[in-house]
Amino acid sequence: MAVTLLGICGSLRKASLNRALLRVVGEQLPAGTHFHIYEGLELLPIFNSDHADPAPVVALKAAIAAADGVIIGVPEYNYSIPGGLKNALDWVSRPPATSPIRGKPVAICGAASGMSGTIRAQTHLRQMLVYSDCPTLNQPEVCIPRAHERFDADGKLTDESTRALLQRFGAAVVAFVDKHRTT
Amino acid sequence: MAVTLLGICGSLRKASLNRALLRVVGEQLPAGTHFHIYEGLELLPIFNSDHADPAPVVALKAAIAAADGVIIGVPEYNYSIPGGLKNALDWVSRPPATSPIRGKPVAICGAASGMSGTIRAQTHLRQMLVYSDCPTLNQPEVCIPRAHERFDADGKLTDESTRALLQRFGAAVVAFVDKHRTT
Amino acid sequence: MAVTLLGICGSLRKASLNRALLRVVGEQLPAGTHFHIYEGLELLPIFNSDHADPAPVVALKAAIAAADGVIIGVPEYNYSIPGGLKNALDWVSRPPATSPIRGKPVAICGAASGMSGTIRAQTHLRQMLVYSDCPTLNQPEVCIPRAHERFDADGKLTDESTRALLQRFGAAVVAFVDKHRTT
Amino acid sequence: MAVTLLGICGSLRKASLNRALLRVVGEQLPAGTHFHIYEGLELLPIFNSDHADPAPVVALKAAIAAADGVIIGVPEYNYSIPGGLKNALDWVSRPPATSPIRGKPVAICGAASGMSGTIRAQTHLRQMLVYSDCPTLNQPEVCIPRAHERFDADGKLTDESTRALLQRFGAAVVAFVDKHRTT
Repeated sequence: MAVTLLGICGSLRKASLNRALLRVVGEQLPAGTHFHIYEGLELLPIFNSDHADPAPVVALKAAIAAADGVIIGVPEYNYSIPGGLKNALDWVSRPPATSPIRGKPVAICGAASGMSGTIRAQTHLRQMLVYSDCPTLNQPEVCIPRAHERFDADGKLTDESTRALLQRFGAAVVAFVDKHRTT
Repeated sequence: MAVTLLGICGSLRKASLNRALLRVVGEQLPAGTHFHIYEGLELLPIFNSDHADPAPVVALKAAIAAADGVIIGVPEYNYSIPGGLKNALDWVSRPPATSPIRGKPVAICGAASGMSGTIRAQTHLRQMLVYSDCPTLNQPEVCIPRAHERFDADGKLTDESTRALLQRFGAAVVAFVDKHRTT
Repeated sequence: MAVTLLGICGSLRKASLNRALLRVVGEQLPAGTHFHIYEGLELLPIFNSDHADPAPVVALKAAIAAADGVIIGVPEYNYSIPGGLKNALDWVSRPPATSPIRGKPVAICGAASGMSGTIRAQTHLRQMLVYSDCPTLNQPEVCIPRAHERFDADGKLTDESTRALLQRFGAAVVAFVDKHRTT
Repeated sequence: MAVTLLGICGSLRKASLNRALLRVVGEQLPAGTHFHIYEGLELLPIFNSDHADPAPVVALKAAIAAADGVIIGVPEYNYSIPGGLKNALDWVSRPPATSPIRGKPVAICGAASGMSGTIRAQTHLRQMLVYSDCPTLNQPEVCIPRAHERFDADGKLTDESTRALLQRFGAAVVAFVDKHRTT
């Protein structure tokens, strides 16, 4: 059965390297895979458990529920994941018993202009996902250092070794999601 | 010289245990210490580096710049710090060269209704603060488990062993901030 | 097909709470599960990649290869896993291509006399296992606080809520290992 | 007053990049600084709290007690610090009340042949040192990627940008240790 994947990009900026990365991941996925990228982290208010889910949270929860798995493109801010991405996770993970992210298989990728390629952010994100009992793809890890040298000004990938990694990643994600699907 | 401290509470909910905790920390600080709690994490838009600092970010940066040190009361969501608190850190840490948090001494405390007392969130927060070169108080750690049993419905602390810990914490914070002040 | 599990206890001390914990885990495993606890971390020299595997490493590697999955009982020293346990992991994880731990499903449990129940050590251990692409059981987490109050002087478990947790844990481990078995 | 520093190398292998790194750090330290590198991690048995300190532990504790601060050169094994280094920390951190590492200022550096430059190991090590209340130098971080391209076969540093970084690091370490000395 075909696999449906939801991409979530942790960055809001227009020229985001991680949105470019997610797009290339989408192009490299095995034929028949459905993939679209969620846009809208900036629409979510700051999480407050006193409030019921506002409309953009309801929409994001529905998008996650409709997917067999999630691919997160994570930039690194302050050696961790962006606050906006964490805020989305805070909303969608509650209440735990009925959260659409609970048990959902997740894969992580990240790109940065520095040498570390978002290693620290990915480590934190893995830890957070243990809370919601998400199976998380271990390997291959996609931590792209000096990413600004691998994408051109239009976000096109110009580095073939990265493309080969993303192809292996895409195949691994689909096999992983298929093994762990709850849908 | 008297020490001025800014409290930041990571939770927005009305009955927040961490706001209650910060208030008691404030009461236990050595005489002469100035302390006030910043309210306003929900006013900050989701961080986007394409945008200049909006007014609430300018205000928070000014509040941090005016303080000799910061005390963060951190709840734990998804085994990490709240997205809203991280979002504030993403704004105020940039640009690195002129960020008011850079080099600023920080102390962390946290309370939770579970057994872990926000240990995981505090670990993440410490790591994030390495980015901005913040000296961070190591000991005593304030990880309050079963906090709902230690505060009454009005947020009053009813547990004397916790009060004693917070008194030691307050004294340690002031000595630490005084040693590391950049102001 | 029956599942064979290898237990590894991170502590060497005679009255180890984590060895007691592993023994109770063993008793609670579903009927038909094979389980034995490896003893011998103290026989391994400190890892040095200049040296070929000494005999105790060969033996540990064989024990891991023969198991369908591994259960690690981890005490917390210095907010992380014991050096002796890490040393064993350093030996058995190399060379990566032929390591018997590679891809092997792993479950983690821990007990401590303090309140945190080895949370920090378990977080580190999860991160380490990403390197060897080990699927790691997320839930239920077994972080036993005040463990000295739950076991008697002979290492017998006296707390029934802990026994119930370990029963759920054992069932989850066996299902998880069966799903991820490479053997 | 002159500062005395103890170097500890986490690797035992003869051609260790981290021993080479520590040696260059030693050469770049400000004039008048005393620095020597401890050799002997392989002499320590695996930590067992049932046993009194064996002679090599007594010697290492004395070396730490005699120093104003410690510089640790940390390789990365299994995304964390080597078991042998952790084992040494397990011994010297106990008993907490009289441990010579308690409150001792520590600086961390690391080199690896991969891209991450021991980032993950350093993160773990920082967390461990919170236990012993060690002030830990935040910046500059020394995470040397592709280190095998920066040192020649004799362990001589051939990369001038790395030398400049180590010079800044050395100056920062001495100032930091002087500020936090307990000796």
